[in-house]
Amino acid sequence: MQVAMIGLGRMGMNMARRLLKDGHEVVVWNRSPDKVAAMVSEGAIGAQSIEEAVHKLTGPRVIWSMLPAGNVTKHALKEILDALEPDDLVIEGGNSYWKDDQENAKPFVEKGCGYIDAGVSGGVWGLKIGYCTMVGGKDRYVRRAKPIFDSLAPPRGWKHVGPVGAGHFVKMVHNGIEYAMMEAIGEGFDLMRNGPFEHLDLGGIADLWGQGSVVRCWLLELLVLAYERDPDLSSIRGYVDDSGEGRWTVLNSVEYGVSAPVLAQSLFKRFESRQEDVYSNKVLAALRNEFGGHAVKKG
Amino acid sequence: MQVAMIGLGRMGMNMARRLLKDGHEVVVWNRSPDKVAAMVSEGAIGAQSIEEAVHKLTGPRVIWSMLPAGNVTKHALKEILDALEPDDLVIEGGNSYWKDDQENAKPFVEKGCGYIDAGVSGGVWGLKIGYCTMVGGKDRYVRRAKPIFDSLAPPRGWKHVGPVGAGHFVKMVHNGIEYAMMEAIGEGFDLMRNGPFEHLDLGGIADLWGQGSVVRCWLLELLVLAYERDPDLSSIRGYVDDSGEGRWTVLNSVEYGVSAPVLAQSLFKRFESRQEDVYSNKVLAALRNEFGGHAVKKG
Amino acid sequence: MQVAMIGLGRMGMNMARRLLKDGHEVVVWNRSPDKVAAMVSEGAIGAQSIEEAVHKLTGPRVIWSMLPAGNVTKHALKEILDALEPDDLVIEGGNSYWKDDQENAKPFVEKGCGYIDAGVSGGVWGLKIGYCTMVGGKDRYVRRAKPIFDSLAPPRGWKHVGPVGAGHFVKMVHNGIEYAMMEAIGEGFDLMRNGPFEHLDLGGIADLWGQGSVVRCWLLELLVLAYERDPDLSSIRGYVDDSGEGRWTVLNSVEYGVSAPVLAQSLFKRFESRQEDVYSNKVLAALRNEFGGHAVKKG
Amino acid sequence: MQVAMIGLGRMGMNMARRLLKDGHEVVVWNRSPDKVAAMVSEGAIGAQSIEEAVHKLTGPRVIWSMLPAGNVTKHALKEILDALEPDDLVIEGGNSYWKDDQENAKPFVEKGCGYIDAGVSGGVWGLKIGYCTMVGGKDRYVRRAKPIFDSLAPPRGWKHVGPVGAGHFVKMVHNGIEYAMMEAIGEGFDLMRNGPFEHLDLGGIADLWGQGSVVRCWLLELLVLAYERDPDLSSIRGYVDDSGEGRWTVLNSVEYGVSAPVLAQSLFKRFESRQEDVYSNKVLAALRNEFGGHAVKKG
Repeated sequence: MQVAMIGLGRMGMNMARRLLKDGHEVVVWNRSPDKVAAMVSEGAIGAQSIEEAVHKLTGPRVIWSMLPAGNVTKHALKEILDALEPDDLVIEGGNSYWKDDQENAKPFVEKGCGYIDAGVSGGVWGLKIGYCTMVGGKDRYVRRAKPIFDSLAPPRGWKHVGPVGAGHFVKMVHNGIEYAMMEAIGEGFDLMRNGPFEHLDLGGIADLWGQGSVVRCWLLELLVLAYERDPDLSSIRGYVDDSGEGRWTVLNSVEYGVSAPVLAQSLFKRFESRQEDVYSNKVLAALRNEFGGHAVKKG
Repeated sequence: MQVAMIGLGRMGMNMARRLLKDGHEVVVWNRSPDKVAAMVSEGAIGAQSIEEAVHKLTGPRVIWSMLPAGNVTKHALKEILDALEPDDLVIEGGNSYWKDDQENAKPFVEKGCGYIDAGVSGGVWGLKIGYCTMVGGKDRYVRRAKPIFDSLAPPRGWKHVGPVGAGHFVKMVHNGIEYAMMEAIGEGFDLMRNGPFEHLDLGGIADLWGQGSVVRCWLLELLVLAYERDPDLSSIRGYVDDSGEGRWTVLNSVEYGVSAPVLAQSLFKRFESRQEDVYSNKVLAALRNEFGGHAVKKG
Repeated sequence: MQVAMIGLGRMGMNMARRLLKDGHEVVVWNRSPDKVAAMVSEGAIGAQSIEEAVHKLTGPRVIWSMLPAGNVTKHALKEILDALEPDDLVIEGGNSYWKDDQENAKPFVEKGCGYIDAGVSGGVWGLKIGYCTMVGGKDRYVRRAKPIFDSLAPPRGWKHVGPVGAGHFVKMVHNGIEYAMMEAIGEGFDLMRNGPFEHLDLGGIADLWGQGSVVRCWLLELLVLAYERDPDLSSIRGYVDDSGEGRWTVLNSVEYGVSAPVLAQSLFKRFESRQEDVYSNKVLAALRNEFGGHAVKKG
Repeated sequence: MQVAMIGLGRMGMNMARRLLKDGHEVVVWNRSPDKVAAMVSEGAIGAQSIEEAVHKLTGPRVIWSMLPAGNVTKHALKEILDALEPDDLVIEGGNSYWKDDQENAKPFVEKGCGYIDAGVSGGVWGLKIGYCTMVGGKDRYVRRAKPIFDSLAPPRGWKHVGPVGAGHFVKMVHNGIEYAMMEAIGEGFDLMRNGPFEHLDLGGIADLWGQGSVVRCWLLELLVLAYERDPDLSSIRGYVDDSGEGRWTVLNSVEYGVSAPVLAQSLFKRFESRQEDVYSNKVLAALRNEFGGHAVKKG
């Protein structure tokens, strides 16, 4: 079927490729035109504006927005809305906060258009393996977009989980869990690295645990690759970014009264990983100096 | 090859079965004789004592001890030691603390025998899938036991990770990670259960995440089964046991100066899950009553 | 000076008493009139409506609002605003979220009135000891209200900390720290209660630590009183409420990228203390049953 | 009364001074003789060996050992034991692990001597304020040492809390709580430093909270001093040491099944404060690179 892909970042471009591979007619737009040209050379139809991308489709249209969450997505959705006609459908596939979806959907509904939020997981591996996709919205629109989800996801790999917002909510929780699973693995490998046995083959252990152990998971498979690249991770600094989803998961835990200590701790540890000097630790060093006369390290 | 399996609990019995299936000659002993009889009916050779089990093997012998960690294992190892001859080999496959292995190995080494510690993961699924096995000990003994490890483990599923103790150390860390991965999943599903969207299909989401998502793992596959059994987990109390490995992981983190906040928190949350009333919380309720006049709930 | 106290809850009534004791002329209003009558018998001037309370003052007026945070405060502020004249001053002394203050202040500023937010700590002991008061707002209004703050607070016990919102922000952080200090004490006393030494005199130790130790603090003094009341806290359930400030502290930590693991953990532990069965723990019990065949406790 | 002080570090020297001030006859020994000379000039009796220090006392003797915990204390105790006669008394006042006390006491008991363990808090302020002292041992020996404890501690500031080991156990828990109270304060001040309101007067707020707030405590008084010294703590690095007690508290929590998440987290945060690059964070950065193509910072 026809679909427009708005945004050709790491995710959007590969998703367009999977759609092309399955025979869909894909109109693409991106802020920097070189990526549009690249996709045109792979069989996509290029557009020079969001409006043009929409108008190159025949109604009822399906537009997939795949842009950075927040203001960029908000403005693009406004442009899309202006170009749409009633009964057209927008799928917001970026990492929007589910509460924003509930707001963003309103003018689409008022104009008689459909709004779907799709949380997409899979990273750079999605092109090959398919994208695990969590879908929120109304049944009739989800049914319409089914061929697209079928192409993007691996078998059994997409699901209509609830009304508008539910897709990104479930994806948000997915990422919260992801942070804590990564932290769990990180702490365990730290203990193996710095514990009583020297020179453990950490990459080999990551691979071993993939074979029948209780903790076998895809993250360990990736860790095997990372250790192959750099057996002591000596070229990598422990600087860990976080995206909105991890933060929103903790905010929602507090808001809904759900105890989520390891999700929160995993987020906070990332905050600290990026700070030259953690201010709370400076307070502690200052206090120890005051009561115990313990020398402080100079800043 | 010939091997004696000492202990026919949930793990030992299924391991004996996998060995029999691969054509090994398996002598079995268990404290309660009915399990010995059961295994004899499946092709094993029964023994009425540890000593008899050892003597039914031709040297150099291989004895696999698969008993509860601590004193039970310690006493069995002593009986095995007494029955062994130089160059025989014992494999301690229970959940021993790696420091105990280092102690327990000494008299075997003094007698000229081999000692291997094997950390075994896989639970009730190991019979079918194979047991992920982490092996510590000397090369020559590990080489000798190779046919046994090959039969017990899935392909690529066992590894010689280091000297005596290293096998159980790596298994210990595995379990520490397991606790925290489970806790991460638990917290995420708690938020989906009690968050803004009612009636999310949690079993379906667990299955969905198995298809191409970043968090795909075996634990989620098991959660699908759990939700099939009981869609709201309403028949299950949140009472969570812990075994030694989770505790030792935290003890070792402290001992080796490794920060392991989510491993520790996952352990502590299990402690609390088993307490009728957490005493620290009583202290808090008492304090709030004193400074704020906040009414306390009566015990 | 003249002041109206709107709201005679646990805090408001005692604050009115401290103001009367210092010779201020205090007009009081409360939703249930019996408390108004009680304060009139102690020398206050009663009012039957917020409007009447305001009008019983001579301008420029000072109105202290001391009501539950959220909608109750919002509606009362609206009534106060309607009754005020330019240059009058409202002091919001309840536990409002500092972001709400920034919103609530706007119509007052538009009408030419003053708005101060005052975070007040001290609980039931404030009547005797005085209330530690954190004040946000414009200099000229803070100067005008100085006699009131002087009467309410102990010596050196109030401070103008910043613009509108800063008072409640600093009070919010105070409460976040309070949660974690309480949790720290709770955990320590739990270990003394359930550790290796039986029958430690916990109340006596709380008192001992008040004399020259590094952890000496008012909370330990209160704990002495609690243990005098009930030496084993056996009549008290470990059910611990939380108010908005603890939650907002964690939300703000996430929002501003500040690592606050013990503040967050202290909040989450309170959540769990109030739950019959923690859902995340049910997920763990279910998983252990699936992979290890570990029996679950029935719900 | 007569007493020997073995060890004149930061704590031991000031304790000797408090004893001298109260009229006790104090024999002192230290590894480096300059400190002995200093104390002799203040009225103490110098000794050139532990044996000499013991022998300068008339029986029944009281020897206070105030040395670094671990091997130094162990060896000194052995020397003291050799020099003692039956019914003499040793007081181990260093930061020994309570389990070590239980071992160390045995040969003293066998020789008919007394053994007391005394946990001492107060830091550099103890000289002036007195040392909060937690005492473990037998009644008759504690009674004998009463004049010494009376001189060292502030009023009501020492207590016989239980048998041998209990003194250091209670002190250990004290330090565990201290870590977490410090962390709570540190996190709160971090949020005030990096939150929405710039230029908050943090030293002033620490002082304010000392006047009638729920969190008033000695640590906040010290923080006032620290901010006076350096208003932005800009000269202080967030490098925080930990001593044995904090670690033992967490080990004991695990051992006795007591949930202590904020005590543990406070310890782990100190570990991280001293690491150039936290290995677990390197694992996370590596994983994010593998699945998301997120660039890593080079080490």
